[in-house]
Amino acid sequence: MHQLDVKLGSRSYPIYIGSQLLTRTELLRRHIPGQQVMVVSNDTVAPLYLDKLAPSLEAFDWHSVILPDGEEYKDMATWQIIFDALLEARFDRGCTLLALGGGVVGDMTGFAAACYQRGVNFIQIPTTLLAQVDSSVGGKTAINHPQGKNMIGAFYQPACVLADTAVLSTLDDRQLRAGLAEVIKYGLIRDSLFFDWLEDNLTDLLAGKEDTLAEAIQRSCQNKADIVAEDEHEHGIRALLNLGHTFGHAIETGMGYGQWLHGEAVAAGMVMAADLSQRLGWLTSDKVNRIERLMKAARLPVRPPQELSSRRFLKLMAIDKKVRAGKLTLVLLKDIGKGVIVNDVPAQLLTETLSANHHD
Amino acid sequence: MHQLDVKLGSRSYPIYIGSQLLTRTELLRRHIPGQQVMVVSNDTVAPLYLDKLAPSLEAFDWHSVILPDGEEYKDMATWQIIFDALLEARFDRGCTLLALGGGVVGDMTGFAAACYQRGVNFIQIPTTLLAQVDSSVGGKTAINHPQGKNMIGAFYQPACVLADTAVLSTLDDRQLRAGLAEVIKYGLIRDSLFFDWLEDNLTDLLAGKEDTLAEAIQRSCQNKADIVAEDEHEHGIRALLNLGHTFGHAIETGMGYGQWLHGEAVAAGMVMAADLSQRLGWLTSDKVNRIERLMKAARLPVRPPQELSSRRFLKLMAIDKKVRAGKLTLVLLKDIGKGVIVNDVPAQLLTETLSANHHD
Repeated sequence: MHQLDVKLGSRSYPIYIGSQLLTRTELLRRHIPGQQVMVVSNDTVAPLYLDKLAPSLEAFDWHSVILPDGEEYKDMATWQIIFDALLEARFDRGCTLLALGGGVVGDMTGFAAACYQRGVNFIQIPTTLLAQVDSSVGGKTAINHPQGKNMIGAFYQPACVLADTAVLSTLDDRQLRAGLAEVIKYGLIRDSLFFDWLEDNLTDLLAGKEDTLAEAIQRSCQNKADIVAEDEHEHGIRALLNLGHTFGHAIETGMGYGQWLHGEAVAAGMVMAADLSQRLGWLTSDKVNRIERLMKAARLPVRPPQELSSRRFLKLMAIDKKVRAGKLTLVLLKDIGKGVIVNDVPAQLLTETLSANHHD
Repeated sequence: MHQLDVKLGSRSYPIYIGSQLLTRTELLRRHIPGQQVMVVSNDTVAPLYLDKLAPSLEAFDWHSVILPDGEEYKDMATWQIIFDALLEARFDRGCTLLALGGGVVGDMTGFAAACYQRGVNFIQIPTTLLAQVDSSVGGKTAINHPQGKNMIGAFYQPACVLADTAVLSTLDDRQLRAGLAEVIKYGLIRDSLFFDWLEDNLTDLLAGKEDTLAEAIQRSCQNKADIVAEDEHEHGIRALLNLGHTFGHAIETGMGYGQWLHGEAVAAGMVMAADLSQRLGWLTSDKVNRIERLMKAARLPVRPPQELSSRRFLKLMAIDKKVRAGKLTLVLLKDIGKGVIVNDVPAQLLTETLSANHHD
C-alpha cells in the first residue's frame, strides 16, 4: 500500500492506494470519529462492493443510501435523497458520510457532507479510475444545474481517500479509458516524465494491470496533491487542472449530461487546447501529434462532436465557471509538461480551433 | 453611525448600525469588488425598500430575485430560485449577492452565496430586528428540511452587515417583539447589565424609538461578535447562543413552520430553560419571575403551545442539531447574565419542565 498526504494544515489528509483496501477495517476506523456512518453509493456500484465493505463497518451504526447511477442524476433532487436518509436515520453532527462510487457519487456525497448540519466528516472510496486520480482528491464538491456543470458546490476536504485498485477490475473498458484522460492531463500540465512513462506503459494500463495502474494513480495523485496544497481554493495555479475542461464542459452540457463521459469530453478538450497552443506558436506540430497519438492509443475522442456548431460551442463556453467579467480564461500548453493559464485568448484563434474541428 | 467588527482573521467584517444606511452608496461600494450584484429579497420587503436601495446600485450590473415571504419557504425549492436567477443573469465567480430582508432571506442568500460556483461574495442588509441582532451576524446560513430546521447549510461569513434602523419603522409590532426575544437572550447568557438596561428601556423599544433601538442592536451585535470571534464553528462557547432554541425549534417544527415566529418560540423556550435551571437549583424563583416579567412586558409567549404534548415535545427535541450520540445538550442559566452549556440534563427534571407547562 502507498500513502500520500494532501498537505492542507489542519485539514491535511492521506490518500491510500493499493489492492483490496476495501476490506482493511483499521484504515476506516482510523478516520471515523463517531458511531454513525452513512454509505452513499449508486445502483451500479452498491451491488458489486457494498457487501465487501460491510464487514469493515460492523462496529458502527451504519446505513446506506443508493442513488441512481449517472451524471444526469447529479442534480438537486437526487442530492436531497442523501439528506432524507440522514434525517430518517436521525444522524447528528458527529456522523460520517462515506462515498462509495465514481466522481458523481463522490461530488454529491462530499457536497452533502459539507452542508449537512453545516458540515460533517466524510471519506472517499472512489471506484472509478477517474475518481481515484482526480475528483476524490482536492475537496471540490458540487452538483450540476440545468444551465451548467458543477455550478452549485463547496470546497470541502475528506478525512481520507481510499483508492482500491482491485475495484477497477469491474470497471468497464470505456470508463477506464475515460479515467486515463485525466491521468494524461497531469503529464501534460506539469510532468513530462510522466507523459513519457504513459506512452511506454499505456498497453499495460489498458489491460488493467494492477501494479501499473497503482503507479499511474500514485503519480497522478501526487501531482494533484502538490497543486491543491499550493492553491486550495483555485485563486491561481490550481486552474491548471482545468486543462481541456472548459472545452469539455461545453461538450458535456451541449450534448446533455451522460452522453459523453467526462473523461472523453476532457480528452477532446485537451486536444483542442493543444491545437490552440499550436496556433499561438507554443507547441510544435510534432508535439501536438504526440498528444493526439496517445489519446488515440487510449481510444479516446480527439475531436468534439459534429453536432455542436462553433457558435453554440462559444455560447456554452461563456457560461463556464472559468469566465470572469466576460473574459474567457483557458489553460493552454507551452510544452508537454508545461501548462499555462491564459486570460487573453485571441478570439480569432479560438474560433479557428473551433472551426478546424468541424472539417476533420 | 456605529461600526463594530466581527474579528475572524482574514474573514473579519464590519457591522454598520445607523439610520438611513440603505442610501449610503459608499458603504456598499466598499464591499462589492466586482460589477455583478444580485439583490435577493422577498415579496414583503422588496416593494418597501428595493426602490430605496436602487440608486446605491446604479453603478453596477445589478438584478434582483424576489422570493415568497415566510419561514415555510426556507426550503430547497425556493433556494433553487436564487441559482436560476444567477445563471439566467450569467453571473460569474466575481459576483456579489446582497440579502435584503429578514432572517429567512439572509440565511437562504448566505447559503446560496456559499455554494454558487463554490462561494461568492455577499452582503447582509437585514430588515427585521431579529435579523439585525442575530441571524445576519456570525455566518450561520441554512435552509430547512421537512424533518428539521436549518439542517442543510454552511458557515459562511458576509463581507459586511448593514443594519439600518430606519427600516424597522415598517416592521409590524409582532415582528419587532419577536426580535426583542433575541435581544433579551444576550442579557440572559452573558450581559446582566444589558438585561437591567432592557428592563429600563423596554417601553421605548416597543414604541420603536430609533436611538434606543440602535443601542439595543449595537449591544446585541457586540455580544454576538465577541462570541463568534471566539468560536466561529460552534465547538464550544458559541452554543450559548442557542439558549431557548432547542425548545424553540421543537415548537416551530411541531406547529409547522410559520405558525409561531422564531423569536416567539425562542421566548417560550428561554422561559422553559429558566424553569429547568430553577429545578436544578441554579436560579431563584425571583430571577425566573424577572425573566418571565420582561418577556410578558414585551408581549412574548412564556409557555409552549398546549397542542404539543410532553411526549411529542421530547421526540421533536431529539432530532435537533444539539443532539450528539443520543445525548441532549441544553443551554441553561446559572444566573441572569450567566449561561452554561449542559450535556447531562437529568431526564426527570426535563420531563417536569415539559409537564409543568401544560398545567399553567
